[in-house]
Amino acid sequence: MGIAIDTFFLNPHHEGTLQTRIQRMVAQGILSGRFRPGEKLPSSRALAAHLGVSRMTVTLAYTELVADAYLTARGRSGYYVGDDVPQPSGHVQVARADSVDWDAALRPPPPQVPRVERPRDWRSYRYPFIYGQTDPTLFDHSNWRLCAVQALGARDFEAMTADLYDRDDPKLVDFIARQSLPRRGILAAPDEILVTMGAQNALWLAAQVLLGPGGRAVIEDPSYPPLRDILRLGGASILPVGVDASGLRVDGLPKAGVVFTTPSHHCPTSATMPLERRRALLALAAERDMLVVEDDYEFEMSFLGPPAPALKSLDRDGRVIHVGSFSKSLFPGLRLGYLVGSKPFIAAARALRSTTFRHPPGHIQRTAAHFLELGHYHALLNRMSRAYRKRRAVMEAAIAAHGLEVAGRGSFGGSSLWMRAPGIDTHDLAARLRARSVLIEPGSPFFADPARGRDTYRLAYSSIPEDRIADGIALIAEEVRRMPGRPAS
Amino acid sequence: MGIAIDTFFLNPHHEGTLQTRIQRMVAQGILSGRFRPGEKLPSSRALAAHLGVSRMTVTLAYTELVADAYLTARGRSGYYVGDDVPQPSGHVQVARADSVDWDAALRPPPPQVPRVERPRDWRSYRYPFIYGQTDPTLFDHSNWRLCAVQALGARDFEAMTADLYDRDDPKLVDFIARQSLPRRGILAAPDEILVTMGAQNALWLAAQVLLGPGGRAVIEDPSYPPLRDILRLGGASILPVGVDASGLRVDGLPKAGVVFTTPSHHCPTSATMPLERRRALLALAAERDMLVVEDDYEFEMSFLGPPAPALKSLDRDGRVIHVGSFSKSLFPGLRLGYLVGSKPFIAAARALRSTTFRHPPGHIQRTAAHFLELGHYHALLNRMSRAYRKRRAVMEAAIAAHGLEVAGRGSFGGSSLWMRAPGIDTHDLAARLRARSVLIEPGSPFFADPARGRDTYRLAYSSIPEDRIADGIALIAEEVRRMPGRPAS
Repeated sequence: MGIAIDTFFLNPHHEGTLQTRIQRMVAQGILSGRFRPGEKLPSSRALAAHLGVSRMTVTLAYTELVADAYLTARGRSGYYVGDDVPQPSGHVQVARADSVDWDAALRPPPPQVPRVERPRDWRSYRYPFIYGQTDPTLFDHSNWRLCAVQALGARDFEAMTADLYDRDDPKLVDFIARQSLPRRGILAAPDEILVTMGAQNALWLAAQVLLGPGGRAVIEDPSYPPLRDILRLGGASILPVGVDASGLRVDGLPKAGVVFTTPSHHCPTSATMPLERRRALLALAAERDMLVVEDDYEFEMSFLGPPAPALKSLDRDGRVIHVGSFSKSLFPGLRLGYLVGSKPFIAAARALRSTTFRHPPGHIQRTAAHFLELGHYHALLNRMSRAYRKRRAVMEAAIAAHGLEVAGRGSFGGSSLWMRAPGIDTHDLAARLRARSVLIEPGSPFFADPARGRDTYRLAYSSIPEDRIADGIALIAEEVRRMPGRPAS
Repeated sequence: MGIAIDTFFLNPHHEGTLQTRIQRMVAQGILSGRFRPGEKLPSSRALAAHLGVSRMTVTLAYTELVADAYLTARGRSGYYVGDDVPQPSGHVQVARADSVDWDAALRPPPPQVPRVERPRDWRSYRYPFIYGQTDPTLFDHSNWRLCAVQALGARDFEAMTADLYDRDDPKLVDFIARQSLPRRGILAAPDEILVTMGAQNALWLAAQVLLGPGGRAVIEDPSYPPLRDILRLGGASILPVGVDASGLRVDGLPKAGVVFTTPSHHCPTSATMPLERRRALLALAAERDMLVVEDDYEFEMSFLGPPAPALKSLDRDGRVIHVGSFSKSLFPGLRLGYLVGSKPFIAAARALRSTTFRHPPGHIQRTAAHFLELGHYHALLNRMSRAYRKRRAVMEAAIAAHGLEVAGRGSFGGSSLWMRAPGIDTHDLAARLRARSVLIEPGSPFFADPARGRDTYRLAYSSIPEDRIADGIALIAEEVRRMPGRPAS
């Protein structure tokens, strides 16, 4: 392979003769790892023309570089990067004196919430009880691929390439309006729907549009950790409110501009908010003029019973903003979700989306639209539900057999169990288990006060094969028994 | 096609007997357009089980709906939505009493900069001198499709599906570091590069990370209109500085935290900043401790001469942040660009990206990586350059023949000419031309003071076929001659 000629520039900061500057340029390309052993250099004639120097100058430079073993000459075929040149340690090495005081130049970032632990190479672990990642044995890769290919076709050229800053893919919006939302008991018109880069982006857009610096936001405690990052970034004050077996506690709710809640399936305890509490929440919201952002999370995984209708389906006065996602049930790398709310809200969120990144890529929107319309999504959810139901039964049996404590379980399904190991620091437990190829998720990052959730952990069954669950649970139970600090029973 | 049973919910707000509530539910589904003529309803047995009511109740409700012609019964095969049901005017109609005072609930948005005019159906115009859209006759659709299919394969499953919040596709970053940036004279390590949702998102991330409310930002005047939206959104104060034939004027530059500039190819006048002025800008930036954000816009379209190296290539102290984009040269719906800067800056931008939308979709990143690596991108740019060179020659000849005034032309290429029609309001001109199937872009949205650019317009040749250019220019010249308010010559 030849090195493209337009990657050659004489560095205007380098001094010396043209010949030595050419030599330095080539040597630097090799030492930085940009030019690799065996790659062919441009001919001396071509490089001379490109740089506007005489051909002799380039030839002399190449000859010197051959003498220094940076290059080898192969007769008439030209000059190549030598095989014995020093190899750069990793990637391009850049030596630059940075004189900017970045601590002063960058806006101080809000303190970042600790992340739920997940090693990048989690697939190489034998017992990955990790949450929210794609299971290649369940995902319908071949139909996704067919839909993506269809969306790459000439008929969908406009949908793929167009600048959609002021609208969304009409097929996707139509499916959301006619199929996804009615399943949640929601009726919405197309201009009450905005396609987003996943639920995270939907939550961020909602928070930005509704809360200024100092705005008051109620969140559930525990809750989805990045929500706190989103609110801190916007300068909102965060009011964590506890949850019980019926989800967010509504009785002592502080006064706030916006309440963020996961009523159908609380994150991470899996509690479902019963109808009476939903009504109480909406009544309180109306009385105090609060808005409610509903993250309608994991309702698709309802294999133990029908999901409760969304909170938004009870909303008679436009007070509820509904967040849905396809990234969870399809795959996280998809980045596709939506916001549902009153028109003025959606218009404001759309304007913000347009300014910050214009729109989610057209091809992704159209691919999802095809996958949904052809019924593949529904079939995928059924397949996932069947697998999860079986895995969950195995989980429950193994957990019971080993005497581990379940602190929360979704009554209609879900993909995880919320666990407690009294007296044990689950970060330590997770570290010990990692050494035995078991991955669990310590619970403290979910809590506003991390100390509170120290003995909790999440066990997901969305990525672990059914036949490994029992052994994995046995290993967890074994390590729990070995851990110091456990109260005597 | 059958209507999915889980889209049926009894509205808890509706009163009356179970039977009448079922009737209302079905009628509402039909009247709102959710259920369409000919669609099959669930069997009475299935719907009764789903709703938890007796089968007789459902049967009675269906019978009433048949009597009212909402449904038709087709013997044993079941119940269908009638063919003569009232058709909703458009999409789902939602009647909801919205009691939220949205003017108070939404954060007051900054005044939006007027957009450059472009009708959605621009492809149906005969003479579309519009900017930045994909020309299907030049785009290499078949190779893009092959690369996308490859990126959908089992080998790239992880790249497509993974949650990339803390990194980017390594193949794409490698290509940018080893191929794209060296073409601009820039050496950067992978952790000095961040993949973004196009240049717009890159500019937004940079502005957010570098400028707090009240921060001072120099912009070029005229400039890319959405940049003003980005800066207003963050509450920065905007300091517009004029441009001349050498781009941004550096002599009278006010004190600011960040200077936004397009040195290689000024937007929209196409001026290139010469080396001396670049050095003066960097010296001033160092002296005053300012940062410079370089939008390296359209350098790929350098068919009249080699592009000047990027400003970033002269940056010795990390003061320049470089913005690149693939959306422009591939297609706007792609949403793919990048930021290059010092590590602390890139880390801060990555954290912000992660909080606001996690990451650009993996599949898009990998598709672009394949397309770039296989050399298709380079071939595409060559093809576009050849076409643009010819179109530009036809443009120049026609413009000269008709005596129109060019106010700015890129010395090394580009995809548009910057025009002036002295004494004429180009919004009126554009409106008249639209009626004759000619699209031009009035220049005033580019100016901080829209009154200033009233007689300017942009003529792009990136989407108009070569053989229509001469006629299109003739029509423009004709309308310019007819316009009132033109100073006598």
